[in-house]
This record gives sequence, C-alpha cells and structure tokens, in this order.
Amino acid sequence: MKPCGIITLTTDFGLTDPYVAMMKGVILSINPLARFVDITHKIGTGSILQAGLVIQGSFSFFPEGTIHLAVVDPGVGTERRLMALSAGGHFFVGPDNGIFWPIIEENENIVAVELKEKAYFLPHVSSTFHGREILAPVAAHLSLGLGMEKIGPPLHDPVQLEIPRPFEKDGYLWGQVMLVDNFGNLITNITSKHLAKFLESSQPLVEVGNLVINRLSRNYSDLEKGKPLILINSFNLLEIAVNCARASEYVGINPEEIVGTVVKVGKSG
Amino acid sequence: MKPCGIITLTTDFGLTDPYVAMMKGVILSINPLARFVDITHKIGTGSILQAGLVIQGSFSFFPEGTIHLAVVDPGVGTERRLMALSAGGHFFVGPDNGIFWPIIEENENIVAVELKEKAYFLPHVSSTFHGREILAPVAAHLSLGLGMEKIGPPLHDPVQLEIPRPFEKDGYLWGQVMLVDNFGNLITNITSKHLAKFLESSQPLVEVGNLVINRLSRNYSDLEKGKPLILINSFNLLEIAVNCARASEYVGINPEEIVGTVVKVGKSG
Amino acid sequence: MKPCGIITLTTDFGLTDPYVAMMKGVILSINPLARFVDITHKIGTGSILQAGLVIQGSFSFFPEGTIHLAVVDPGVGTERRLMALSAGGHFFVGPDNGIFWPIIEENENIVAVELKEKAYFLPHVSSTFHGREILAPVAAHLSLGLGMEKIGPPLHDPVQLEIPRPFEKDGYLWGQVMLVDNFGNLITNITSKHLAKFLESSQPLVEVGNLVINRLSRNYSDLEKGKPLILINSFNLLEIAVNCARASEYVGINPEEIVGTVVKVGKSG
Repeated sequence: MKPCGIITLTTDFGLTDPYVAMMKGVILSINPLARFVDITHKIGTGSILQAGLVIQGSFSFFPEGTIHLAVVDPGVGTERRLMALSAGGHFFVGPDNGIFWPIIEENENIVAVELKEKAYFLPHVSSTFHGREILAPVAAHLSLGLGMEKIGPPLHDPVQLEIPRPFEKDGYLWGQVMLVDNFGNLITNITSKHLAKFLESSQPLVEVGNLVINRLSRNYSDLEKGKPLILINSFNLLEIAVNCARASEYVGINPEEIVGTVVKVGKSG
Repeated sequence: MKPCGIITLTTDFGLTDPYVAMMKGVILSINPLARFVDITHKIGTGSILQAGLVIQGSFSFFPEGTIHLAVVDPGVGTERRLMALSAGGHFFVGPDNGIFWPIIEENENIVAVELKEKAYFLPHVSSTFHGREILAPVAAHLSLGLGMEKIGPPLHDPVQLEIPRPFEKDGYLWGQVMLVDNFGNLITNITSKHLAKFLESSQPLVEVGNLVINRLSRNYSDLEKGKPLILINSFNLLEIAVNCARASEYVGINPEEIVGTVVKVGKSG
Repeated sequence: MKPCGIITLTTDFGLTDPYVAMMKGVILSINPLARFVDITHKIGTGSILQAGLVIQGSFSFFPEGTIHLAVVDPGVGTERRLMALSAGGHFFVGPDNGIFWPIIEENENIVAVELKEKAYFLPHVSSTFHGREILAPVAAHLSLGLGMEKIGPPLHDPVQLEIPRPFEKDGYLWGQVMLVDNFGNLITNITSKHLAKFLESSQPLVEVGNLVINRLSRNYSDLEKGKPLILINSFNLLEIAVNCARASEYVGINPEEIVGTVVKVGKSG
C-alpha cells in the first residue's frame, strides 16, 4: 500500500493549546508536502473508546493510503507501547491502548508493528508528549513511503478494547447510548442488522430514559417538531432524535450521564 | 469560470463530531488535490439566515473559482431540493433552503442547477447525511472542472430567505442586531449607506437595549475602556461595541435573545 | 532565508466567526499555493502575553521559512505600529504590541520592519480589521519571497512585553502559573534550569493554592489516580498536574483566577 500524503488527526487535546499545531509542524519538517485533515480534537479526556469508535466510523471515507494519527494517550510515559498498523487500505499510528481495536477486529490481513526504531523519533523524547516526539515523526516517515518493517518489530498482541455490544434477553434487545452528537442526537450501539434480525416483521418499541418511541422514522423531519423519533442513521446505527430539538434534553437524564444509558427495544404491532 | 481547487465549508456540525472530516475524506477520494478552508462549523443549529449572511460576507475574499460548500440542512431527507450555483465568480453547493439567497439577490448572471445526476453522488445515499453523500461529492466533481449543466436541470425558482432590512419610520431608522461576534460586538443590519442617507449631516443617536450612544467612533479604542461605542465595521455595517469589554453584556438583554433586538437610530446635533 | 510556503495563524478570533477564513481567503488570493496551520484561535481576548508565549513555544517545531501570523490586536485602528520580523529562521507578522517580544529577546540577528508600503495591503483598509487588510496580505507577499526591506523601514525599538520571571527570595524560588491547558494542568514560568540551579541536590517542595507536593514525577501516571504531582513538561517547564484529573480543580482557586497564582518552591529532604 502506498501512502497518499494525507494524515488525519484525532486527539483529546482540545482547540485552545498549541499541541496539535506542534505535531503538524513536526510532520511538515519531515514531509513538507503532508496534508492534514482534523477528525476531531475534542475527544473526551482519555476516552479511548470514543476515539476508537470515531476513527472506525470515519477512516473508510478517506482515500486509500491515508495515515490516521490518534493521540488519546493517558498512559504517556509509562511502559505502554506505541504502534503502527496497516489495515483495510489505511495506516494507523497511535498508542497500543485499544484505540485501534475496532479496526483490528473488523479487518483481515492487518500488519502491526511496535514503534521502536529511534531513528524515526525526534532527537529528544520527553516523558509527557510522545504524540509530538514519536507518533508525529513516525507518521511523517510513513507518509514518505517508509516500510512498516523499518519502524520496529511485529506486534502480535495489541491491547483489546472492551466495546459494549447489544444482546437479546427476556424477549428484548438491549443496547446502550454510545455518543451524543452536536445536535443532541443519541447514537446507540444497535446496528440496522441487529435491529432487523431482532424485529423480523414487527415494529420496534424503543425505551430510553423517559422516552418511549414506537415507530421507525426515515429522517429528522418525519414527525412534527418536538416529537422524539428513532431512525437508522448514516452510520447504520439506531439513533434517537427529536425533530428540531436536542433529544439529549428530552430523555430525562443528566447530560453528563447519558452515554452508557440503557436502550431497550421491544416488539410492537 | 474555472475552479481553483479551493473548497470552503460552512456547517452547523460543531467541532466535536467527525461529520466535517467525513465530507473532506469524500472530497479527497474524488479530487486528491482539493484544498479546504473552514469558514465555520459553529453556525447555530439549523440557522439558515446566519449561515447565509456569513457566506455572503466571506466569499468574495477568496480567489475566483472557489467552491463554497454549505451544509445547514434541517430538512435533510425530505423533498427539499439540493442545488449548485455559480455567481460572482464563485461556486456554491448546498441545500435549496434560502442559504444562498443573499448571494443570488446581489449578483447578476447567476446559473443555478438542481443536483439530480446520481453519477456524481456516493453510491449509497442515506436519508440523514446528504452533506456527505451528495453535496461533498458534487463539490469535488465541480472542483475537477465538471460543467454545471452535467449535474442536473436548471433551477429557476430558488427558495428565498426573509432577511430583515432596516427601514425609516416616524423620523427614526430602525434596524436590528443580526449577529454577536466572538468579542461580544453587536453587528446590525444597518449598512454605512443606510446610515449616511438617513443622517445626512446630523450625528447619530443610537439606542439598543439600555445603551444610548451619540457619536460614531472610528475604532474600538476611540473611547475610554468600558465605554459603549458605535462604529462602521469591516463589513460596512453599523456595530455596537464596548472598548475592552463585551457589548453583549452591557446591553441589559438576555444573551440568548440579543439577536433580533431592535436598534433605533435617531438624529442628534 | 527562503519562505517555505507554510503560514501559521494565532488569533483571539474564536472559531465561530468567519474572520480567520477571510484572512486565509486574502492570502490565497495572493499566493494560491500557501498552506495553513492554525496554532490556536482561542487566545483570551486581547491577551498579548498568552499569544506571545504560545508562539514562542511552538514556532521552532515548524520548518525553516515558516511565516507565523499573529493577530491579537486590541489597539487596531490606533497609532500602534504593525511589524514583520525575521528571527531564528522564521518570519513573524503581527502588531508591534509586544506579541513577538519573547522571540526577539531570545534570538540574535533579528531583522524587524514596520509595515508601511501600501502596495502590499488590500486596496481598502478599514479601521477595525487590519489582520485582514494589512497583516494577511503582507504575510502572503512574504510567502512569495518578497524581501523584508520592501515592506517598510527598519523598526529598531519594538514594544517590549513584561513577562513574569521566577526569582529567589527568603530561601524560596517564587514563580507563577502562566497557563492552564486543556487537561487542567498548571504550566508555570519555572524552567528546568531554574529549578535545578535552585535545588542543587535537594528535593523540591512545591506549594500552589492548597496543594503541597514534595516529589518530582516523571509522567502523569507516576502516582495513583487523583494524586497531585509535579513534573518537567514537554516545554521544559515545571507543571502541576493530577493523575487522571484536572489540577485546576484541586488547587482551591477560582478557575478564572488561576493564571498568575503564586508557585512557591522550597527544598526538602
């Protein structure tokens, strides 16, 4: 696989500090033609699961050979490993803390290496910002065509991430809210496949917090304004929304506690 | 008009979710050399008027042939149309919901088409994210030089946007606050032309909320710190500001209700 | 020194308004191949010191010949001067209000000029947005290789910035908190050199607000979760942090008042 010169960035660094810019500067100092797309820098502090799901949902929209750099690294400076991965026609560079587990789990023919070859690091490595001193320069060298095998030895046992999966029990399908997006929509872990298999020819009856919704909509304007609705979203996941309003404010749960909330799906009609 | 390879983006997607990055990935997969400038992703949810004014105020600072992609699309998935527009030496791609009306109104020799030709869409079109599946790929194809006429049939009756205009009544000039910027400055819909025509040789006496200001300043430091002032800003619009402070906090109006507030201009002196 | 075509941007414009995009549009209209890296647009309103320190800490990670454009300009439209600077293999363009003083102070062989030559400005200059009408176009012309001497006369007496420095008194080393980062870490003005010189072979005993910390850690995970710690960060500055939490919430000081808080370092052990 040939790198295409595009590097995406996903971090929990926020948008106020110069940390992201420093990484871009390091990369441009090695590959002056590198081009960047920021996926997001507003991952919750240390939230490996959120970052992993965001990268999994986004990477395939980029050209083959894109390098996805992820720095959500609460263990920086400890013995945790750093890794590079090629999978599904893309490269991934980040800590070996489970952040790429959703990619590894879903792809075959993956190659993973541990970042060990110091020739591709910055000369001075601090103990608090390996994103700048190791991950960024390694991504830059990969974008120039450096072979994975040059970076370090194979990594055969990447850290796994525990990803909550929906399950059937007592005649219901149980999932949970994984993410609240900018519009206040509640994105669950229930895929359209899960739902179709569970429902067969029935209609869904979805309960989350104090909302009860009994009909699958096609889009956000399907019901009148202010009505809660469910639909299969553009990630192919069951989503709870409210037309022209924030579902997160209708569900009767403290906004900081919505992620992880149980979503109970029954059959109706 | 030849595309110059630059694509600007204006959305209400915020900066946390990967939605903007997905659109950029789709564009780069079609035109690997496309270059992006984010205008803003913090348009108020569904605020077509705010997005329309922001694009109108910004587009002419870009090179000829820039493509301006706008995704503020509360009606996604309904029967609303999607459109591409060439006007004033620039291209515009977005929903036909009035977002480009300020451009259409002010320019002659516009060409508008409805997005109909599925060959330029992503193969799978969801009912909730046409920005990614239709608007982004169409913008990418335009940036490669695709003729407007290939995208779909002419669109002769674009949706119009109701834009509040200032008016004279009872010897006063009445306008309103259209936008509060990052500095808390209140940007009105009163242009320098409106003001000059109304004032003739008089001085203005401006009232907004509990502020009364009776002199036009040249810049933000014209009066002492903490004093409210009015000036003609870099958009050529009447603006209410406070030197070294946020006018939005001096006006005595709930911050969420400032947009739309009446601005009353009288003559003094 | 040859420009490399990369332009960084540091402003207090925030991420909602189109002001940054307008500057990029102006630059691309002059140099269509210019490439941008945003350092941050969330500098506190008018905070020249914060902007100066952020640029000082970041610029050297970029390739030689990068142009660093800084627009934190509370005096816009007054008699304050605008300047361009070459120092340390980089260019800097911004107001002469002290923002580049940290760069000037630390570098030899600097060249500074006042921006005077109107041929390199936009044709119309407002009195409220010189970032767009003067600084951006001058940066664009510099990126095309324009010589510094063409822009205006030498500027020999740049405005100096008062930067708080640590000092020894009564057997203690006294510093202060300069910045709270996205993780709530408190970044001080005490360099590793200051600290080593003061401590000699002793251990530090650091007091800030109601925290007392008596051991230098190597990274954020060095102590158990929730314990406050001190370390030398990736800027080579003393930093107060809490493992997996926000030090800014542990220090017992109103978050808005933490910057400027005294940090007292004694010797222990």
